[in-house]
Parts: sequence; structure tokens; C-alpha cells
Amino acid sequence: MNKGLLVVGTMAYDAIETPHGKVDHILGGAATYIAFAASNFDIKIGIVSVIGDDFNSNDLKLLTNKKIDISGVEIVRGGKTFFWSGKYHDNINKRDTLDTQLNVLENFKPKIPQNWTNPKILLLGNLHPAVQLSVLKQMKVKPNLIILDSMNFWMDNFRSILDDVIKEIDVLCINDEEALQLTGQNSLRNAADLIQTFGPKYVIIKKGEHGAILFHGEEIFMTPALPLKKVKDPTGAGDSFAGGFAGYLAMYSNISFESMKVALIYASAMASFTVEEFGTVNLQKVSKPKLKERIKAIENLTKFNSQINSNEI
Amino acid sequence: MNKGLLVVGTMAYDAIETPHGKVDHILGGAATYIAFAASNFDIKIGIVSVIGDDFNSNDLKLLTNKKIDISGVEIVRGGKTFFWSGKYHDNINKRDTLDTQLNVLENFKPKIPQNWTNPKILLLGNLHPAVQLSVLKQMKVKPNLIILDSMNFWMDNFRSILDDVIKEIDVLCINDEEALQLTGQNSLRNAADLIQTFGPKYVIIKKGEHGAILFHGEEIFMTPALPLKKVKDPTGAGDSFAGGFAGYLAMYSNISFESMKVALIYASAMASFTVEEFGTVNLQKVSKPKLKERIKAIENLTKFNSQINSNEI
Repeated sequence: MNKGLLVVGTMAYDAIETPHGKVDHILGGAATYIAFAASNFDIKIGIVSVIGDDFNSNDLKLLTNKKIDISGVEIVRGGKTFFWSGKYHDNINKRDTLDTQLNVLENFKPKIPQNWTNPKILLLGNLHPAVQLSVLKQMKVKPNLIILDSMNFWMDNFRSILDDVIKEIDVLCINDEEALQLTGQNSLRNAADLIQTFGPKYVIIKKGEHGAILFHGEEIFMTPALPLKKVKDPTGAGDSFAGGFAGYLAMYSNISFESMKVALIYASAMASFTVEEFGTVNLQKVSKPKLKERIKAIENLTKFNSQINSNEI
Repeated sequence: MNKGLLVVGTMAYDAIETPHGKVDHILGGAATYIAFAASNFDIKIGIVSVIGDDFNSNDLKLLTNKKIDISGVEIVRGGKTFFWSGKYHDNINKRDTLDTQLNVLENFKPKIPQNWTNPKILLLGNLHPAVQLSVLKQMKVKPNLIILDSMNFWMDNFRSILDDVIKEIDVLCINDEEALQLTGQNSLRNAADLIQTFGPKYVIIKKGEHGAILFHGEEIFMTPALPLKKVKDPTGAGDSFAGGFAGYLAMYSNISFESMKVALIYASAMASFTVEEFGTVNLQKVSKPKLKERIKAIENLTKFNSQINSNEI
């Protein structure tokens, strides 16, 4: 019985242009970012994904060096790896997608390795909801926690099957625009309340540079994003966030709203590392001391002494 | 010698339409919101502003009932009070200004009452920078703290004189778009760093539903905004925020980064009350128990136990 984190999502090559530079062909994909972020915790991690035989073996080695199990990564002979290209505006919170080539993703039928059919946490990254559903059906035992992260691309055209997936999950982790679009609401709080009637008991709304909010019934927790001096490339920030969240929780048997709060702080830290360099470069270099330092910095952002002069009010 | 909070800003009538309703003629203006918010603290408050003789005496009474000193409010015989009209989008974070009638504001030459020429805190609300400068010149002693709040309308056309004002202040409190526009920067952190070279040692960037950030050298503090079930009318949220901030600080002789943190939490609470109803209606009804409850709610939004399982990382 495997008790780790199973990540299902894309592996990709990206071409990215931001105000701080340009790369033509860089390792990317939701599963990649998620796994790298989660590899900072003392847990077992498996990836289920698909790549073409154009995929660089050195890039696979980057994953296995982090003890990430890639036995669930299917390599399609003669196939080409998923490719995404985007350009960020001067306001780096906005971007245009220039090109999306699904390639091997188009006919992806995930096969979960036997030893990964009972993970402690299952994290479904951005993928076709039919693929996500097929993964859910291959679980032998319901994981302690099923997290679905982001689905912008699929919301308009595959809503019905997406709803089937959402029904089965415990945590929906989406960005603010997606939350409003998914629910037709005008406020994040109402959107989160409504989503909880769809199935997930927990809703995390990612707000980019404004941090993220966790909703669970009447309980609400917010994590800020660290205000960085330079954001070089926001690609993968949301995936890194989800990976940090799931990776932290996978360490513990007891998952609660309280432990999710701490998990969100780690999530925010992972996102902050990612955006400081292009692609996964900086995320791969996270060390325990750097992580501790950043957790402290994020904690200090909102920490105050409410007892200062509190009698006078 | 007066040791309270002097507020200089507009008093107005507003016509407001939001997805939740419409009002044609409601008490508004920066100084009004600021003073109501600050009146929740045990401090002396004076307003310097200008109104026409169309101003309803009952509205003045609302202020004096809160022990706000209106001896600095000039009433122009035959003049008409400043009028603003705006319409909010379905996304209530966006609005269009439909009409702005400066009226008596056009020729406003503020005269600071003798007993208000030495306030502990001077808060300059949204007004022509020449008016703000004239107020600064009438101060007999430099106040402990000079705060300038928002100046969207004046940035483009009166930049030079605005810079003269900014040079003299301690705290600049502006919204995120203004911060980027003022500095030509693309990130809030860089904008805040640059603004600190203009004069103010403290910069507060207001981000509406995303809360606010206080910058001071390398120190950063964030307050979230309470995620409310219903935002009826965002008008005056920023002014209420500034009023809560200044009102809290005016209670104490020692103003520090630490006390500003708590002040920001009170600021956020005041803004949250304001937006729950049209105009100043809800802000006027704040009680000490309601305020305490809301402070606790805001504090809980970001409070977590970092010691949970912390050894394992």
C-alpha cells in the first residue's frame, strides 16, 4: 500500500516571453511543477502523465534525482510532447497564450501503476476532465484527500463531465476568475459557498499576487503572496502552489482545517520561489533553510500584536 | 494645544448605483467617511472642508452627534455642495464616474481654525494638492504624523504641486493603480520602494477586496479585507480605511511600525462596515462590541499555528 502523493497532470515544453526575458523551449507542465514543489517534503511522489519521445532524458533525470517516481509517465513512440507558448504583459499578472499543441495529450488514456492505486493524496492537475475521471475510477481505495487544481481550459466545453469530477473531490483549488466563471457569482465568498454545494468540502481560491483564500463552511483562512522585488516568470506559480499544499499535507495522517492553513503557507512559499526565475529553475533549487526562511517571511507579513494598547478601545 | 486628528477633505452629496440598488442624494465625501470612521476611537476630531448652503443641517448634526468638530467647515452662501455620481459594474470592484460637480470646491481656500493648527495627526483626504499645501503651511508645529490619502483625480494634471505635498508627508495611502501610475513601476513593491525616496517613510497600498499592504524600508505588513457575503456599495471604503488607521493611531503618543500594524487591522474593519450598506449608513452604526468582533474575525483570517508538526520539515 502506497501512502504518498500521486500527481496526475501535464508534462510539457514551454516557450515563454516576459518583460524580463524569453525562453524557447523549457521544461514545464502542471505535473512537473507540482512534483518539484512536493519533493521538498519527506513523502513518496508519483507522476502519471504522457510525453513524446522528443522528451529530453535529462529532464526526466531532474525528476528522478528528486526521488519522484516516473513509472506512471507514458512515453509515446513517435509522439510529440505537449507544447505551450505564452507572452506576459508589462503588467506581469496578465498573459496571452500564443500557442497550444496538445500533441500526445490528445489521446492520453492514463494507466495508474498498481502501486499507485491507493495514494494518500491524489492531486489532479489541469487536464481533460475525462482523463481525471478515468484516474478516479482506477483508485482501489478512496484517497484520504482528492485535490483538483485549475481547469480553465475545460470549463466552457466539458462542463458536464467536469461536474462529475468535481462531485468526487475534497478540495477544489482554482483561481479567482475561474471561481466566478464556474459559479456565475460576482463575489469570491459566494462562489466558494456555492462550490461547496457541488461536492468539495474545501475550496481554495488562488489570487496570484494577492495570495489565496481557503473556504470551509464558515471558516476562512488567507495566505498572502510574498511581495517580491522581481517576478521574472509567473508560469507554474499555481501548480507550485498546489504542489506545496499537497506535499505538506501528505506528510501527516491527520488532515484538518488547521493543518491546511499551514499547508497554504508552504504553498505560497513554493509559488514565490517559482516566479523568481523562468520555468522550474528556481523551484528545483529550494533547500530546507531557504524554505524555512521564506515561511517565516510569509508568517511575518500578517503577524501583529493585538495586545498593543488593546485596553483603550 | 490640540492633540487630536485633523481631517481635511471633501464633504459631498453622492448619487450611486450598484447591483444592489440606487440612491440619488446621499451624504458622502472623503472627510465625512474619514471622520465617521475615526469617531470610533476616543480622540478629538476636527474637519476642515467646504459645503454650500444646500447642505442639510441634519447631516451636519450627524457629525456633531459623534463629537466631530465642524468649526473648520466653511459654508458658502449661495454655493452648492460638491456632487459626485457613479455606477458600479456587476463586478462591484469596478465603477464608472457619471458626473463630478466641484461646485464650492472650485474656489476652496481652507482656513484652519486656531485650535487646530497643531494636531497630533493631520490627514489630507482627496483634494486639490494646492489646497493640501496651503493646509500644511498653516500648521504651527509639524504634526506627529501627516497622512495623505488618495489623489487619483490630481495625479495627471497637478503632478508638480502634488510632488511638493508628497515631500512633506509621513504616510502615503493610495490604491494599487495609483501607486503604479505615480511611479511608472510594474510591481507594488518597487512602487512602494520608490515612493519612499520621494519623502514618505511609510507607504500604504490599498487593494480593495484584496486588503492593503504597509511598506517601511524592508518591513512589510499586510492586512486582508474581510470576505463579506454582500458588498452593497464600495463608495468610501478607502476613506473609511484611512479614517480607521488615523483614528487608531491618534490615541497614542508613540507611533511605530508595530502600532501601525494594528491600526491597519482597524482600518480594514472600518472599510468592511462601510461597504455593507450605501453611503455612511453602516459606518455610523459601528459599536465597540461590533468593532471588537470584526477585529477578531480579521485577525483569525491569517492566524495559524506554525508549530503544528513543525519538526518534520
